Amino acid sequence: MSPIAYDPSNPFAKILRGELPSTRVYEDAETLAIMDIMPRCEGHTLVIPKAPARNLLDAQPAVLAACLATVQKIAKAQMKGLGATGITINQYNESAGGQVVFHLHYHVLPRFDGVPLGSHTGKMGDMAAIQAAAEKIRKAIG
Amino acid sequence: MSPIAYDPSNPFAKILRGELPSTRVYEDAETLAIMDIMPRCEGHTLVIPKAPARNLLDAQPAVLAACLATVQKIAKAQMKGLGATGITINQYNESAGGQVVFHLHYHVLPRFDGVPLGSHTGKMGDMAAIQAAAEKIRKAIG
Repeated sequence: MSPIAYDPSNPFAKILRGELPSTRVYEDAETLAIMDIMPRCEGHTLVIPKAPARNLLDAQPAVLAACLATVQKIAKAQMKGLGATGITINQYNESAGGQVVFHLHYHVLPRFDGVPLGSHTGKMGDMAAIQAAAEKIRKAIG
Repeated sequence: MSPIAYDPSNPFAKILRGELPSTRVYEDAETLAIMDIMPRCEGHTLVIPKAPARNLLDAQPAVLAACLATVQKIAKAQMKGLGATGITINQYNESAGGQVVFHLHYHVLPRFDGVPLGSHTGKMGDMAAIQAAAEKIRKAIG
């Protein structure tokens, strides 16, 4: 199977180019972490590489390594800043694998004892709550 | 939050030490890929580091990078060898995050159009079917 070509018109590419807004919590030379606007839990964060990659299947290993370093940073900050007691990482590849936006992204989901993960409803979250969670994560990265 | 200490009595540590059996599909200096014995789908594979790490929260970034290189290798082999049309990656941290075995592991789940992911039932899978899927993945790694 040949990887499918990257399409630069996807929403995350637009966020990276500054053509769409986002709530950023962390950025370095290779990656960006932003809040999911349809959160499945408090503090639902996405980690994306700056390099174009459709998903796991076409990404360069160095890009995956950079993403995981940021995923770890965000996960630790969610534990500390939000008082999460666990973290779930989901990463979807191709439609059959659950992928909706075709730019590689990791879902970093803070979890709390006894709270089931919400389903993906496709509805916009409460932006004030998203901003508040983002601020707690940012402060905990320090 | 301080990371919780690694407990070397977990089942994956025993597999790494050869104290428990496993169906291996790939191994390199830093990682091992084995079949999940309670598969949620055909070809459900686990990627674990050889270095002791409880989960994402205490793993060294180089360990995460090595795991992801193997996760990618397995995902590509599942697409080619099993004819999967997508891949779902799940990785759980601490009980609240869904973790059951406390040695870092990535679930690499081959997905097929129109086939929902099975739930984790806690029941042993059909070992003949697991061995057959393992053989297809091994051949596709080549």
